[in-house]
Amino acid sequence: MAQLVLVGDAWVWADGQRIAGVTSPIKVIHDWKDARGGDGTPLFLQTETVSQDDIVLGQMTPAAGRGARLALTACLEAVQRDDIDAICFAPLNKQAMKKGGMDFEDELNFFADYFGVQDYFCEFNTLGTLWTSRISSHIPLADIPKYVTKDRIKAAARLTYKTLKTAGFAQPRVAVAALNPHGGDGGTCGREEIDIIEPAARELNEEGFPIQGPYPADTVFLKARDGVLDSIVTMYHDQGQVAVKLMGFERGVTVQGGLPAPITTPAHGTAFDIVGQGKANAEAMTQAYLLAGKMGAARIN
Amino acid sequence: MAQLVLVGDAWVWADGQRIAGVTSPIKVIHDWKDARGGDGTPLFLQTETVSQDDIVLGQMTPAAGRGARLALTACLEAVQRDDIDAICFAPLNKQAMKKGGMDFEDELNFFADYFGVQDYFCEFNTLGTLWTSRISSHIPLADIPKYVTKDRIKAAARLTYKTLKTAGFAQPRVAVAALNPHGGDGGTCGREEIDIIEPAARELNEEGFPIQGPYPADTVFLKARDGVLDSIVTMYHDQGQVAVKLMGFERGVTVQGGLPAPITTPAHGTAFDIVGQGKANAEAMTQAYLLAGKMGAARIN
Repeated sequence: MAQLVLVGDAWVWADGQRIAGVTSPIKVIHDWKDARGGDGTPLFLQTETVSQDDIVLGQMTPAAGRGARLALTACLEAVQRDDIDAICFAPLNKQAMKKGGMDFEDELNFFADYFGVQDYFCEFNTLGTLWTSRISSHIPLADIPKYVTKDRIKAAARLTYKTLKTAGFAQPRVAVAALNPHGGDGGTCGREEIDIIEPAARELNEEGFPIQGPYPADTVFLKARDGVLDSIVTMYHDQGQVAVKLMGFERGVTVQGGLPAPITTPAHGTAFDIVGQGKANAEAMTQAYLLAGKMGAARIN
Repeated sequence: MAQLVLVGDAWVWADGQRIAGVTSPIKVIHDWKDARGGDGTPLFLQTETVSQDDIVLGQMTPAAGRGARLALTACLEAVQRDDIDAICFAPLNKQAMKKGGMDFEDELNFFADYFGVQDYFCEFNTLGTLWTSRISSHIPLADIPKYVTKDRIKAAARLTYKTLKTAGFAQPRVAVAALNPHGGDGGTCGREEIDIIEPAARELNEEGFPIQGPYPADTVFLKARDGVLDSIVTMYHDQGQVAVKLMGFERGVTVQGGLPAPITTPAHGTAFDIVGQGKANAEAMTQAYLLAGKMGAARIN
């Protein structure tokens, strides 16, 4: 389906294989221009990003965050040059990334800045059937209300609808979630639904996007579980993530939406607590890789 | 297990039976002092709260909210006089309650005011195995940070631990949830975890309450699902309710915690959209009634 190119430090690859007790065949390449020349065997592009001396397994370190950023930057440059079609990255630690010099709230903003994206972009979390997007992400809860604007909701809903179309949904069924408990209970418990979210949904309908809602957050995911919705535009990170992780933590994939190239990653984190114990479940990584391949293929065809 | 006393208008009972196509045997009483004289047949204490002319099925009306408040008040007075041991109420509409004259953010605050409760009180949502409590409830999302104080967290966690003890958990395993995405990611994404929640947990430990956390909201419910936790102290309504409803919407029960008498209700709402369609699932109502009976029995024994 795709030619895999592994990007990172040789010592990390060697150490990972030693810990996992496996040996995986690879073919080492030294230049990105050889990335399209593979025969199916995974290629390994050795990239020096971090010294083994600066790493303690299972601990957050600025050096590791810096290394992750360098590896990602190498991939971004490669996809810009068209040496590759899509990027799938392993879990990273945002705190390490920030302490290692990433001046953005998260890696998505780092990617968007790299590509110079002007339009709306946001993370999608998908379980294959259910896709969630959001209008705010890795920000303190106290800052969420500032992000609840008609413009952001409309942009996120449009991007969601279009992304699902390209992902093969002929008639995407997309709803926006409410912000306040019980959807604001008719304005008695917050007015964003009445003043902002419902007007945004109505304007989207007038534009030709059949966006539903706002629906109260604590029941909208039941509609998705029951197959009545394909996608939910959430107002904040945990609103969607609590649900998505409960509905399929093992297979959850994050898609960086609104960028010029497909970028995917498993929805779970770095799992420092089980480092070296041989317990890691690779299902989400597998799903992330397959989705990157599928979207990369759709992009070039 | 318990002597049931139905409280409400005769026309509502008659209309409900007509719509459902059932006839349930009851024995009509006219005074609360007859409530303890039943032989097991459900007693019906006719209480005039709302006229049939003021009700439109499936619509929120202030008259219906006023009626619900009057019926609840009759029950509160009865439990105060010790005519009954516990209260289980059917779903009500908070908006109707407020428009019908309830000057509180929700029915729990109405109950607490009625009883003159001075200590901490909060709603519990339970699926039998998992119990969730919260430090803020039916308030706009924008107001949540004001509620995140060490005092509220400690009071909620203590009440949670004690309530689970009385509900039969010998060693309750209770954790507090984080407020911000990824638990604040080491302070880079909100500082409440570092400044407030973690210190509160540590102080609780020093008091002898083995409270765990804070754990990020999007993974703490996986620990509960996997049987590693009995209860989670959440920071806001939807944080817990999104998870609880996904984990068992049909059997979810709400317990009004910290009051002098047990009060329970199904976790779901009034379901105006399926009025009269014969689709309602009574499982949560059954569980709420059984739990009220169990807690009422524990109270008198």
